Amino acid sequence: MKIAIAQINYLIGDFEGNLKTILSRVNEAKKKGADIVVFGELATCGYPPRDFLEFNDFIDQTQEILEPIKAASQDIAIVIGSPTPNPVPEGKDLYNSVYFFADGEIQHIQHKALLPTYDVFDEYRYFEPGTKFSTLEYKGHRIALTVCEDIWNIGNENPLYKTCPLDILIKEKPDFIINVSASPFSYNHAEERLKICKENVARYNVPLFYSNNVGAQTELIFDGGSVVMSPNGVVHREMPYFQETLEVFDLEEVMAGNIHREQEKNNILEIHDALVCGIKDYFKKLGFTKAILGLSGGIDSAVTAVLAQRALGKENVRVLLMPSQFSSDHSVNDAKALAENLGIQYDIIKIEDVFDSFMSKLTPHFEGLPFNVTEENIQARTRGTLLMAFSNKFGNILLNTSNKSEMAVGYGTLYGDLAGGISVLGDVYKTQVFALARFMNKDGEVIPENSITKPPSAELRPDQKDSDSLPDYDILDEILLEYIENRKGPKEIIAMGHDKALVERILRMVNRNEFKRYQTAPVLRVSSKAFGMGRRMPIVGKYLE
Amino acid sequence: MKIAIAQINYLIGDFEGNLKTILSRVNEAKKKGADIVVFGELATCGYPPRDFLEFNDFIDQTQEILEPIKAASQDIAIVIGSPTPNPVPEGKDLYNSVYFFADGEIQHIQHKALLPTYDVFDEYRYFEPGTKFSTLEYKGHRIALTVCEDIWNIGNENPLYKTCPLDILIKEKPDFIINVSASPFSYNHAEERLKICKENVARYNVPLFYSNNVGAQTELIFDGGSVVMSPNGVVHREMPYFQETLEVFDLEEVMAGNIHREQEKNNILEIHDALVCGIKDYFKKLGFTKAILGLSGGIDSAVTAVLAQRALGKENVRVLLMPSQFSSDHSVNDAKALAENLGIQYDIIKIEDVFDSFMSKLTPHFEGLPFNVTEENIQARTRGTLLMAFSNKFGNILLNTSNKSEMAVGYGTLYGDLAGGISVLGDVYKTQVFALARFMNKDGEVIPENSITKPPSAELRPDQKDSDSLPDYDILDEILLEYIENRKGPKEIIAMGHDKALVERILRMVNRNEFKRYQTAPVLRVSSKAFGMGRRMPIVGKYLE
Repeated sequence: MKIAIAQINYLIGDFEGNLKTILSRVNEAKKKGADIVVFGELATCGYPPRDFLEFNDFIDQTQEILEPIKAASQDIAIVIGSPTPNPVPEGKDLYNSVYFFADGEIQHIQHKALLPTYDVFDEYRYFEPGTKFSTLEYKGHRIALTVCEDIWNIGNENPLYKTCPLDILIKEKPDFIINVSASPFSYNHAEERLKICKENVARYNVPLFYSNNVGAQTELIFDGGSVVMSPNGVVHREMPYFQETLEVFDLEEVMAGNIHREQEKNNILEIHDALVCGIKDYFKKLGFTKAILGLSGGIDSAVTAVLAQRALGKENVRVLLMPSQFSSDHSVNDAKALAENLGIQYDIIKIEDVFDSFMSKLTPHFEGLPFNVTEENIQARTRGTLLMAFSNKFGNILLNTSNKSEMAVGYGTLYGDLAGGISVLGDVYKTQVFALARFMNKDGEVIPENSITKPPSAELRPDQKDSDSLPDYDILDEILLEYIENRKGPKEIIAMGHDKALVERILRMVNRNEFKRYQTAPVLRVSSKAFGMGRRMPIVGKYLE
Repeated sequence: MKIAIAQINYLIGDFEGNLKTILSRVNEAKKKGADIVVFGELATCGYPPRDFLEFNDFIDQTQEILEPIKAASQDIAIVIGSPTPNPVPEGKDLYNSVYFFADGEIQHIQHKALLPTYDVFDEYRYFEPGTKFSTLEYKGHRIALTVCEDIWNIGNENPLYKTCPLDILIKEKPDFIINVSASPFSYNHAEERLKICKENVARYNVPLFYSNNVGAQTELIFDGGSVVMSPNGVVHREMPYFQETLEVFDLEEVMAGNIHREQEKNNILEIHDALVCGIKDYFKKLGFTKAILGLSGGIDSAVTAVLAQRALGKENVRVLLMPSQFSSDHSVNDAKALAENLGIQYDIIKIEDVFDSFMSKLTPHFEGLPFNVTEENIQARTRGTLLMAFSNKFGNILLNTSNKSEMAVGYGTLYGDLAGGISVLGDVYKTQVFALARFMNKDGEVIPENSITKPPSAELRPDQKDSDSLPDYDILDEILLEYIENRKGPKEIIAMGHDKALVERILRMVNRNEFKRYQTAPVLRVSSKAFGMGRRMPIVGKYLE
């Protein structure tokens, strides 16, 4: 028996497009001799469809495109995720299901039982958990079907859940397990995924075919990396990351367990590729091709520009260098050198005149008051307005270049440098931005060395340095990681050896700046806890403030 | 027996402040002869605490302040909502509980069973549902305790749930029911609340003491309106809306059912008061007193200014009039008249010079390209930058003045007129804005009549009118309400008699502008479906586009 995994980049709500892709991959699988082709979770409508699921019209369309998919299951079985209306009034209106089509008929439907409702996941908002579990037989093989999280509660060890679907399904002695997933990337997720696959196979002693979605859906990046695991725990195949692809596997070969093919694991490489994928899909799926961003000569905009050039092509990235009276010469030179290295169009627009024009209007009202953050922000907002003017005039999307460290402590100007359609580095700490820059330069200088080695500065007043008001990024990022990713409170972080006053100051800054993060662009998620939909904090509150 | 309801405005995470308020109200209730005093849902930490609940440190502090509250339960019983750590590893880490303290001891804890996980609610993200239900006896009376949603599934008629806590509790023959709630305002919610209270009392034939939180928590506005319902279905008391208060009720009087005291019901009045409450609390809880906004002479900024003046006082509201070359004379005159009517400080800053300064930088790059939305947006962003400069220099919060109709269709400039710390009218359709303006003028002209009657215009190019590109607001708002609040798809809306091409165009505009709403301020919620946390839409997608 031959089983194909189709690792696909779906577009949410694009029923026509998704159907076309699915049918074309069904044909490809047939031509390659597959008996079964496995797609991903909620493949008909794309994942996550979010509140579109509350529209009957949307659900009707998922149901409609299941018909031609069902009809295409001639000489091949099709396994595919799609929502199912709950036939009874009790409970949520939908199930998150996996369908098994063969001979033009529905052979089996299995509803997802474990509904992630944490971090970026809201599945219990929409779905009723499945409670009945059964296998099916196809061409003399017994098959257990599961959806994503259903394999993540091995033997009921995961305290979030009270059901272990495979403990029930295994009683029917399946020959193999199929899992359809939409499991988003974070930089240590590939290892966790392989571990959970291994643990399932070790417990049940049958092979596992795990099909993951690929591609970015705004902030969520699905990395693919679909897994075929032999019953002896050998990774028969870990499919490529961040690529659409279809591969066919021979069940006998998988059973034998002699083949081992995994992807290279490297956090910085994975983050790099995830961000390139995130930019590429954001543009492609919105129907845009061209990006614009401001290059300051600093490392954040430099790394963002490199990622954009790699995602969109050098002809599709344009940058503005916008020095003020506070900019150092090296800033413009470093930015120019980078633009030249990347082969991208750059223009220099000095902002001092516009700044002066603003100040001529404001000075009568600000009499006697000193230069402060107000004037700094006017520079940032002048730059934001210029960038948005290019965005509007030429149909470019503005890329936001703020990193996670500065977004965390509120080091950025709303409607200024916090502007942009998508935040490229908002889930990448400054220390990781440095690592990305080094990685980008590993085969020769792309980012000017000076952009990497000079002390970080916003250059919004004379001789300003980040270190004037922030601790070293090594220390800052450690504290932020404990608070944001690990959800440690101040006592626990101080107990790790950090300075009490510093920890309290940093945590207060994080909480006080929730209002800024609320208004910034969606952040490409590469960690286990990114700003945005997965981290839901009150704006008005007094905790740690 | 005398039962006090303390309708309180808690501050999320302000353990010290909430404790002080609670203890002071316990004393007040004692002085007024109450045997029991009833607070609200999650009163210790404030509702909704959102992801703060994932911090052990935060939960520890809720536990710590329960101690002095418990100790204060001498000569009075205290009923109060607070989270409870789940003692076993299985399931979510917390329960959402109501505590009954008396004689300095915990007499009873009842965990919430029905966990709203829809719209603005994420309770299953944090809480394990309670599954055991029992009453308690106090001073010869048997009492059934419930938390909020637990009384909203009468006889299992609500398809979202499979448990009806009171159907179980009633078997122990309680003398009355207590419910602690945090039930946010929408303009028809007070009626729904009374209806559900009536239905419970009708089913169980015992009185109900329903205590609701009051005050705004960023976008969510809790209206109070706590209810005491006699067993004969008469509303013994509906407490005031949008006010902190404590009232004491005599159980025998409640039993008799001869007293009927309800609040006036008027949707526009309620929306008005809710928005005033929302502005007031946003400022107070963030530690700010002063607001700034731009007055265009149009109705949206006029209504926002009136609400701000009523919420913060005339000395705390400052406005800028920022005419451009495209502004009509009447715009400045109408805005001046309004500012004078309100007694608020106004300044006039002409933006043409700044606009020209921007254009002098951009023209070399825009050669040969016509005036379009780019130049319109530069005007809006110049105004946004000027307003933010005042905000930064004087410590004012900028109020956003966009209405729900224009936010829906994307009629607004990101970082321009969409800027601001809080969106006052973002959940108020344009037709409702007109109704609010009329309501404000009912005892004499506050808003100049001309601001109400002239055709709406953004005045960003010569002779522009909203009606150039949008249908009449009567029609637009009907279509938007069906799509947003009622979640009808295009077929259903067209079937109601609306023009097909128009419906499709409007729905496409709504979906395409999700990216703008993602980056705008929190919206004070006054409807059953506001933009923001309660409406979670993909940005990248192709549904109806």
